[in-house]
Amino acid sequence: MAPKRVAVVDMGSNTGRLVVFRLLGDGGWYLEDEIREVVRLRAGMTADGMARQAVQRGIAVLRLFRRFCENVGVDTVIATATSAVRDAANGPDFLRRAREASGWELRVLSSEEEARLGVLGVLGEVPLETGIVLDIGGGSAQVSRVRDGRWFDGVSLPLGALRLTELFRMSDTPTADEVGALRSHINEMLDSVEWLGPLGPEEEIAGLGGSIRNLGYMEHAQLGWPLPTLRGFQISAERVDELIEQMLSVSLARRARIPGLNPDRADILPAGSLVLQEVMRRVGATRCHTSVNGLREGLLLGHLHGDTPPKGDELRALSVDILAWRYGLHRDHAERVRHLATRLFDDLAGRHGLDASYRKLLEAAAILHDVGGVLGYHDHHRHSQYLITLNGLPGYTARETALVALLTRYHRKGTPTPGGYRRLLGGADLPALRWMSAFLRMAEYLERGRRGTVTNVEVTDWGSRGMEILLSTDGDASVEEWDAERRAVPLLESVSGARVRMSVLQSGA
Amino acid sequence: MAPKRVAVVDMGSNTGRLVVFRLLGDGGWYLEDEIREVVRLRAGMTADGMARQAVQRGIAVLRLFRRFCENVGVDTVIATATSAVRDAANGPDFLRRAREASGWELRVLSSEEEARLGVLGVLGEVPLETGIVLDIGGGSAQVSRVRDGRWFDGVSLPLGALRLTELFRMSDTPTADEVGALRSHINEMLDSVEWLGPLGPEEEIAGLGGSIRNLGYMEHAQLGWPLPTLRGFQISAERVDELIEQMLSVSLARRARIPGLNPDRADILPAGSLVLQEVMRRVGATRCHTSVNGLREGLLLGHLHGDTPPKGDELRALSVDILAWRYGLHRDHAERVRHLATRLFDDLAGRHGLDASYRKLLEAAAILHDVGGVLGYHDHHRHSQYLITLNGLPGYTARETALVALLTRYHRKGTPTPGGYRRLLGGADLPALRWMSAFLRMAEYLERGRRGTVTNVEVTDWGSRGMEILLSTDGDASVEEWDAERRAVPLLESVSGARVRMSVLQSGA
Repeated sequence: MAPKRVAVVDMGSNTGRLVVFRLLGDGGWYLEDEIREVVRLRAGMTADGMARQAVQRGIAVLRLFRRFCENVGVDTVIATATSAVRDAANGPDFLRRAREASGWELRVLSSEEEARLGVLGVLGEVPLETGIVLDIGGGSAQVSRVRDGRWFDGVSLPLGALRLTELFRMSDTPTADEVGALRSHINEMLDSVEWLGPLGPEEEIAGLGGSIRNLGYMEHAQLGWPLPTLRGFQISAERVDELIEQMLSVSLARRARIPGLNPDRADILPAGSLVLQEVMRRVGATRCHTSVNGLREGLLLGHLHGDTPPKGDELRALSVDILAWRYGLHRDHAERVRHLATRLFDDLAGRHGLDASYRKLLEAAAILHDVGGVLGYHDHHRHSQYLITLNGLPGYTARETALVALLTRYHRKGTPTPGGYRRLLGGADLPALRWMSAFLRMAEYLERGRRGTVTNVEVTDWGSRGMEILLSTDGDASVEEWDAERRAVPLLESVSGARVRMSVLQSGA
Repeated sequence: MAPKRVAVVDMGSNTGRLVVFRLLGDGGWYLEDEIREVVRLRAGMTADGMARQAVQRGIAVLRLFRRFCENVGVDTVIATATSAVRDAANGPDFLRRAREASGWELRVLSSEEEARLGVLGVLGEVPLETGIVLDIGGGSAQVSRVRDGRWFDGVSLPLGALRLTELFRMSDTPTADEVGALRSHINEMLDSVEWLGPLGPEEEIAGLGGSIRNLGYMEHAQLGWPLPTLRGFQISAERVDELIEQMLSVSLARRARIPGLNPDRADILPAGSLVLQEVMRRVGATRCHTSVNGLREGLLLGHLHGDTPPKGDELRALSVDILAWRYGLHRDHAERVRHLATRLFDDLAGRHGLDASYRKLLEAAAILHDVGGVLGYHDHHRHSQYLITLNGLPGYTARETALVALLTRYHRKGTPTPGGYRRLLGGADLPALRWMSAFLRMAEYLERGRRGTVTNVEVTDWGSRGMEILLSTDGDASVEEWDAERRAVPLLESVSGARVRMSVLQSGA
């Protein structure tokens, strides 16, 4: 069966983008390829519309995108254009020429559609049920309300980073008065949104767009971040304040050299950051989720799921499945490991006292424990950790992602420790990591032959006299028993402080 | 089409191993899965043969291996046994029971077959045309002669690390006399091999077996090694001397804590290392190739190719193809990038003066430049570098592997520098890296649409007035030209110190 691919084309004012998503079973997907081309459709735009050269650039890029899609083998193309084409007097002419050059009928998105689709993308990644999504673009900023994990309503404000920078031509090193004037303007605009008040106890805020993403990079470059993915990252209000202070206290030239700051954004990033800061202050947010997903992912999700893409537990399950489909080898083995590991978790609940949220992380890790095998068999447990943290797990927090990755790391070999992830974890997570690593390792070695020879486990807990693990088997499980004894029981004994005995309860076949 | 897999089973005296190789097209393969189980077939062996418990362990492990193969889906099983089964009086009985338990007819290898197959494995990895292969096992050591990249002849000597350790019971911290006596014994044995004299100018030595591999780990742990793979590693005679000195100057307990030394080998590693040292001294070798491949890879290669597996350029081409088949997406794009990059290399030979061996590395990098895409699109150039150095390239030296990996790293973004690989490279490699990165990057951006729109390039070199790159195109290549101009020409200008102009020579379609 040929792989299925969906391409999303997005002809923006400054940049044309082609993103190719590979589709997996049952709603799964990942980004497989991407081209960004600077098109500058707004450069030289007049009342007559886009300039001739701008149109030529746009059309040449669409022709390139078309060739790229042909070579890669794309089944569906979602081709869109946003503000420049929407606003230009010669937009219809551009659309006709685009059709001739590429065969694609570009869909021109309204600003509300753009905001809704951006939120759709965010909610396909950030675990946000209720609250605010702030999308800071170049020309405008969209503030959207989310309820029950869905877009509810929103407004578009003229608070884009580029627009504000051009409107308030600040000094090379901005003065306090200049910054104050910009702040007042931002707050005036925000005042017009009557529902934009303090977040309720369950409410959170998420942000997307280049400005917010760049604050994330600065944070990572300056203070480090233990995961290779930005998924799950949240920036604190305190750090937003510090980063703004850092940017505004220096000249443009020095600002461009601040670690993590993209020099191309050195001029406009202060304005964009101030919008974020004022919105966070107004809603009283101490932290803001940052989203890797945006408009293009929203377009894909809308195509696949309409207005109701997976969220919550469904999204989390899908994230695990995506990595398993993409990299995994033996799903049946992984499912048996999940079964055995959760049996141990349940039967020893009295000893470890971990709640159901941990059990779900154990299940995710059981499904993913072998995904690193795609990189090479040797050290595949370390590769699993790497692949999970490289891709991230949409719907999971950074803490949860780190725990799942650590569990896969320790499904064989070594003493479970959080290593560089310690700052992401809470105090209760450390014993949880040890307990669940022991369960996963027991399950892995009891599934040594990968054939379901150990069909079930049942623990009898004799309290201070230790515990007995009774195995149900289908055929000769002597090696499984022996391997679990040598390679997994020592960890379980060390974690529980109790003696562990294994015996075969009943043997089929 | 279902994936093809070959399993190799090797029931050794101490360990039973199952290795599953995945077959790719045209002789390609990689190790997909592995199980090692301690079976201790020799434990308690008498004149009547293997002990009852040892036989039971062996049979249980074979049953496990059988289940594993069934689940994984293996097409061919090459099941072998070595010295314990070969020597035991009840070997035939073991073979009968093995057949009943697993359905496999174990092939019992003679010591000469074992040596030949080990060499076959080594020659599938180490670029050795003529010289010596030394295989130091537990009971014996095989010294083989290689001519024209093939096994020529060899001897088996009673110089295994375990056997020597038991024969010469040295003190906890060995005395000089004890070490001298062991050395004399080794040399007496080596004297019996009349052809074992100084290596000729073209001759080299390669080693395999646990002792040699562990010396490699010690070297890496103590002095670092820039590549994640051990493939391509050579240990110097000087370092062998130093490591032996380090081991012999301390007690067994302290020896077990030497960085990189496997504590399980602390007792036997000195003896095994002395054998390597004396052989290297006798043949006057300043360095010894270490091999990751061994008997099991030799069994696979014998199965696939008989006595004549790929070597030299054929092996090198296969190594590249294996990574491309395993991880690559768009071979046709890669081939076009290879074509364009080598055209630039050839037309600018007068400027860079690089020889044909560099051109071959450029070709390999062109085929592999996108393999990192399997990990994720973002930073795929870095992922390509990682995957190449993680797996290694059989048939290539560490230096060549590092250069190919660096070229893929710099096929987009950044200024080519050797980074941590500097110690692997020669002085001429640094300008070569910059030149070839520029060619590869030009080729990549001229293939932006991945559709062969730029069909050819031709360089006219105007000397001090710069150079002109003439493009032949099939269709509109304006974006390719524009991207190459912005994203690749600056590097080429910086490397060449010359102005670079591009123009379209002729346009088809």
